[in-house]
Amino acid sequence: MDVRTSVIELCQKARRAARQLAVAETNTKNACLLRLAQELRQQQPRILEANAQDVEEAGKQGLTAALIDRLRLDEPRIEALARGVEVVATLPDPVGETIACWRRPNGLEIAQVRIPIGVVGIIYESRPGVTVDAGSLCLKSGNAVILKGGSEAWNTNRELARIFAVALEAHALPSDAVQLLPTTDREAVQALLQQAEYVDVIVPRGGESLIRAVTETSRIPVIQHYAGVCHTYVDEFANLRMAEEICFNAKVQRPGVCNAMETLLVHQQIAQAFLPPMIRRFEAARVEIRGCERTRAIVPHVRAATEEDWRTEYLDLILAVKVVSSLDEAIAFINTYGTGHSDAIVTDHYEHARRFQREVDSAAVYVNASTRFTDGYEFGFGAEVGISTNRLHARGPMGLRELTTYKYVISGNGQIRT
Amino acid sequence: MDVRTSVIELCQKARRAARQLAVAETNTKNACLLRLAQELRQQQPRILEANAQDVEEAGKQGLTAALIDRLRLDEPRIEALARGVEVVATLPDPVGETIACWRRPNGLEIAQVRIPIGVVGIIYESRPGVTVDAGSLCLKSGNAVILKGGSEAWNTNRELARIFAVALEAHALPSDAVQLLPTTDREAVQALLQQAEYVDVIVPRGGESLIRAVTETSRIPVIQHYAGVCHTYVDEFANLRMAEEICFNAKVQRPGVCNAMETLLVHQQIAQAFLPPMIRRFEAARVEIRGCERTRAIVPHVRAATEEDWRTEYLDLILAVKVVSSLDEAIAFINTYGTGHSDAIVTDHYEHARRFQREVDSAAVYVNASTRFTDGYEFGFGAEVGISTNRLHARGPMGLRELTTYKYVISGNGQIRT
Repeated sequence: MDVRTSVIELCQKARRAARQLAVAETNTKNACLLRLAQELRQQQPRILEANAQDVEEAGKQGLTAALIDRLRLDEPRIEALARGVEVVATLPDPVGETIACWRRPNGLEIAQVRIPIGVVGIIYESRPGVTVDAGSLCLKSGNAVILKGGSEAWNTNRELARIFAVALEAHALPSDAVQLLPTTDREAVQALLQQAEYVDVIVPRGGESLIRAVTETSRIPVIQHYAGVCHTYVDEFANLRMAEEICFNAKVQRPGVCNAMETLLVHQQIAQAFLPPMIRRFEAARVEIRGCERTRAIVPHVRAATEEDWRTEYLDLILAVKVVSSLDEAIAFINTYGTGHSDAIVTDHYEHARRFQREVDSAAVYVNASTRFTDGYEFGFGAEVGISTNRLHARGPMGLRELTTYKYVISGNGQIRT
Repeated sequence: MDVRTSVIELCQKARRAARQLAVAETNTKNACLLRLAQELRQQQPRILEANAQDVEEAGKQGLTAALIDRLRLDEPRIEALARGVEVVATLPDPVGETIACWRRPNGLEIAQVRIPIGVVGIIYESRPGVTVDAGSLCLKSGNAVILKGGSEAWNTNRELARIFAVALEAHALPSDAVQLLPTTDREAVQALLQQAEYVDVIVPRGGESLIRAVTETSRIPVIQHYAGVCHTYVDEFANLRMAEEICFNAKVQRPGVCNAMETLLVHQQIAQAFLPPMIRRFEAARVEIRGCERTRAIVPHVRAATEEDWRTEYLDLILAVKVVSSLDEAIAFINTYGTGHSDAIVTDHYEHARRFQREVDSAAVYVNASTRFTDGYEFGFGAEVGISTNRLHARGPMGLRELTTYKYVISGNGQIRT
């Protein structure tokens, strides 16, 4: 059987499994998740053995230490994965939730009810943890999932998929609800991305090039998780001590993530007071500063920022700094150079706060808080599939609810249309 | 300037207009809509003149009478369009609605707030009414819109777009908020469908071939309005009088629309009692019946249904009829052959009603009512962009809310992440 045919069969199996999983009771899904956690712990030796093979192969192929570290599992990591699955079991089931319900003048009762999306395809790099996370989130939200991890994690992922099947079968759920693409060939992914009849959405998790490649090829809707070029704007009416803490946190606490600040905007009225101590503190934390001309007029030793800096997601200890003349300029700058991810204002001015929240067109708009809070856990969703930069369907942190759609359930007693 | 360049400029203008329109007050948008209605009435002679040119040209080109009828405007039709615009002005503004709001343990307040999608592209056939309807719905929901109507309606649409600009400018709203694609060339549409940077969603309104062509070319997410192969299942525990009224209504009241019934499923226990009078009534209304073998065993004179009949959206006075052995068979049949649009059960059995509503995977699932109610007006949305057959973002009737997305507005007092 050729790759394309086997991918189509796998997608058809996923569709059938999705129909069964969609009507599974919450108790059954939770019991399955708890069994999965138990199996992960009990079958740890087999998982570690498979993972050791992958790590050894990756070493031979000359992968970087960072990539090998992402690939490697050990006892504490498996324990963390098992606990994560147990947390998913405790979260409320979004399926069956009534979003709205109303009665029409003719007596029809219309309820908008949450249901699973159906079949979800997840394409990711060589992080075996994603296999467990994404698989358990899809299972909880009643979606069948097709997983395509990086080829370096092949043996580990196969072992994890086998454990999913054990847990599913133990609770009479369809074992095809969690499937791994049969090969990690490019051809298999290409075939998957054409199966719009059987797969409802594709979620690529990884770097921008992976996401772009998937988006360009896919015939299935894609939920993108693109870059975050996040801003903090320190207004002329900011509490400067608060501003310093927020900016420092947004840049330094974890610079490699999409909700970290990449550009600092400072109002001209407070730039002279704010920038020198702020930049000293950043530099003490090894943050490289790239400033506009007005920034360099105040702190002359910093490197000059170029147009490209305003568009760059550094994901590193680098920060672009710009002095602006007004709130309007700050908002226009963010709407021009930002990526619509997370942006913050620090201000004590009521109307400035209100205008910033209203006019900045980003998924998460903050007043007096760090952009680092854009995250499913911090938002209280309990888990996260990722942070969507799409405008449609799901925007910002995606939790279990964002893995659902809805249908209208209409109850009548003989109504006909006249 | 070539077509592609002029389309890109038009899309950029739409993006700028969208930012202004997104923060426009409801009162301003409503006043603009009322002015639009007034202008439609006052400028009726100019509209009719432009329309007469289009109709004359269409006649020369040999368009069918039905197509010319769709194209033609007259005094009552313009009055109906103006009244439709006034209704949109009275509908609640979805923009700014707080969908949910909660406080986190650290004191952060997170509000999920409805905002416009941004720039909407609408591609439709030669129905000038759509220009007014779609334009006013987008305006009300704060979206800039790019309209691409059929080439036969070019003069009429240009006149209508000019009137939109008058109304927008009269209320200091950006006149680029409602724009017509500069030509109706295929090249212009192709260029539009590539502008994912400036256009957020494409809504094709028209036949299946139009929708498929748009979907295959577009780099922008498309909200499809595909066919409805809708079923009514008459359960063994149905009130047969109610069933007859519902089935007759679902098929005959307006056969040419997507929520009309195309296939009737009847439980074997009541087929003998139900089918003969039902089919007599259908035949009296000139409905052609195509039945399965078991149907023909009861009503021998009807034509035999083929596999293709189960998949066909007739949009006509034709009905496929099948006898089934169980509720399970009915549900499985609908989930296999249906298009996930609107499906109904007629039953007095509590658990059968519950199972049908839960297990049929369609946008609208009815108990004891006609499928003909799947419609923005009948659902109480006050207006309708169409009926989405997508699973993501919007499913079923699309009203003003479905033309919005959301952002998270987060209010803090110095929170940083630790």
